[in-house]
Amino acid sequence: MIETVRWSQKNSYGLLPGKLKIIDQTRLPEDLIFLETDSIEDVYNYIKNLTVRGAPAIGCAASLGLAAACQKLSSKSRDEFIVEAEGYANFLAKSRPTAVNLFWALEKSIAMLKTSTETNVQKLKELMVLEGLRILNQDIEMCKSIGKHGAVLLKDGDTVLTHCNAGALATGDYGTALSPVYVATENGLKISVYSDETRPLLQGSRLTAWELKRAGIDVTTICDNMAAQVMSEGKINIVITGADRIAANGDAANKIGTYGVAILAKYHNIPFYIAAPHSTIDTKIKNGTHIPIEKRDQDEVRRGFGKLTAPADVNVYNPAFDVTPNELISGIITEGGILKPPYTDSIRNFMKNKIS
Amino acid sequence: MIETVRWSQKNSYGLLPGKLKIIDQTRLPEDLIFLETDSIEDVYNYIKNLTVRGAPAIGCAASLGLAAACQKLSSKSRDEFIVEAEGYANFLAKSRPTAVNLFWALEKSIAMLKTSTETNVQKLKELMVLEGLRILNQDIEMCKSIGKHGAVLLKDGDTVLTHCNAGALATGDYGTALSPVYVATENGLKISVYSDETRPLLQGSRLTAWELKRAGIDVTTICDNMAAQVMSEGKINIVITGADRIAANGDAANKIGTYGVAILAKYHNIPFYIAAPHSTIDTKIKNGTHIPIEKRDQDEVRRGFGKLTAPADVNVYNPAFDVTPNELISGIITEGGILKPPYTDSIRNFMKNKIS
Repeated sequence: MIETVRWSQKNSYGLLPGKLKIIDQTRLPEDLIFLETDSIEDVYNYIKNLTVRGAPAIGCAASLGLAAACQKLSSKSRDEFIVEAEGYANFLAKSRPTAVNLFWALEKSIAMLKTSTETNVQKLKELMVLEGLRILNQDIEMCKSIGKHGAVLLKDGDTVLTHCNAGALATGDYGTALSPVYVATENGLKISVYSDETRPLLQGSRLTAWELKRAGIDVTTICDNMAAQVMSEGKINIVITGADRIAANGDAANKIGTYGVAILAKYHNIPFYIAAPHSTIDTKIKNGTHIPIEKRDQDEVRRGFGKLTAPADVNVYNPAFDVTPNELISGIITEGGILKPPYTDSIRNFMKNKIS
Repeated sequence: MIETVRWSQKNSYGLLPGKLKIIDQTRLPEDLIFLETDSIEDVYNYIKNLTVRGAPAIGCAASLGLAAACQKLSSKSRDEFIVEAEGYANFLAKSRPTAVNLFWALEKSIAMLKTSTETNVQKLKELMVLEGLRILNQDIEMCKSIGKHGAVLLKDGDTVLTHCNAGALATGDYGTALSPVYVATENGLKISVYSDETRPLLQGSRLTAWELKRAGIDVTTICDNMAAQVMSEGKINIVITGADRIAANGDAANKIGTYGVAILAKYHNIPFYIAAPHSTIDTKIKNGTHIPIEKRDQDEVRRGFGKLTAPADVNVYNPAFDVTPNELISGIITEGGILKPPYTDSIRNFMKNKIS
């Protein structure tokens, strides 16, 4: 078990006082360091700077981070507290633009406050932690279910290619894309993984390789530009990646490079799957062209390793995500089963009973 | 002009004594440093460690490096000298396995010795330098011709995507893939370039971006995994890369990642061209499956920037090249014109009059 996002309570007899506790993912694979905070600025910066990253983990951290910060509010009344909590939530919502889980989790916490009839501010603060824990535990359960459904795609001896990190470090535990690998391995299958290193921030080599090795799973790191060669050598049976936002028609935004991998998989006739819980699906968005794509700092590419790897003033184009069109996606592995094309129908049916 | 490989003669009145002079490409873009040597071990290591790289530049450096080292041989007779020179050439031929220009240039120098009737060892040493200079000057002329032929593919305002460095730093000057860009720019056209950074050794961001900026050409660096996104945004009109070895059927080995870019170009209906002189074409090799692919050190990926970017003991697969099958190649830009499919015919016709 990897404790990516947790609630750290000070006393064993109550949730409050407590802090958001996360693994500092910018320090992996060299150091495993935990950070604790109840500062709203810290939570904002941890999300913005990818100290905690991965769409589901961001949702959990935002919710528990919001609860941690709100416990320090000195609001006298329920109404005053809700206004201030909503201000904090709006602030956190600006930390990153693409992953829908961030907004989903924050809205869920604020909606919970608004619909509760509780007037005691201290109790409301406790309810916020409970809501965060509910989101976290629900996420872990969703991830396990994704793994159970995705594992049927894998047979003994298979090799999975994945991009970025959609593993335990991107979620409460298990992960999305890696959950089928973990569950199949628990079921006694021998599954190997090729992990794209995923420039510029190397979540694949720093995080995916680290967590799979830690779990005793055979993993090989490659540079992103080696995926085509590895596929052409017949080494890959299936590609599974996560997603940061999925539109109503199945178009899926995920870490930059995913779209390219999907094209390469199609060329080599390798099935390409997306794994994500329902909270990643944004039915308000019709198709991928409407998903906002975060552009990140040019120095992530020029100086990403502390050393100048390009002329200091060269133009850099650094989109953090791309959108894989639905026609390249063999299926979407969710906690409720594998959605198949046509996605407009399968997503509508799947989301019908979900409370977003 | 970028003096990638040159002969540095000590006195203005004669080629001897002299040294091989190269730009240390491992130090770019931070420092522009020239190295001079007449040690055969240095020449071997400079090629092996990519201090000098790029198939044509390797050929030039091998030939002039061989001449520099041979001038110190104390052989008394012509026969003794040729045997020792051939020993040096065989040693240099082991420095890297994929680029055919290395073997081509070394064989050319040794063949020149064997066919000459010169018996004076000092004169033979001078002939070796002359042969190296001939290879270098021929390379520069070939590159200019490649540029002239390739420039007709470009129109004002076009944007070229390239991978790795097949520019002036990979050749005597002008380059292969970049030569059409330089020539079109000299002709007054406004051409922009997107440069894949090209992991693991970043020749695209360190070298291509550096030399294009130096030449005043608009260049944008991207991570390799961003190419698909940039193409889907309609930013790329044409892809041009170099090659390290081209088989008789047009299959082309080039820096790892080229094959993937070719697939992405096909998916986006963007023409994909290879630019290379005849010395890169190896008609002894029927197709790409017979081209030996160099596997390089795992730490190039794990510690490429002096910092650990993956678990220290994680498996890494690090092929230095891949092979783009001929069906993905729109044309091969050579010094004699653009070869078109079917390549078995167009390459046979082109090579008919070439003395390999």
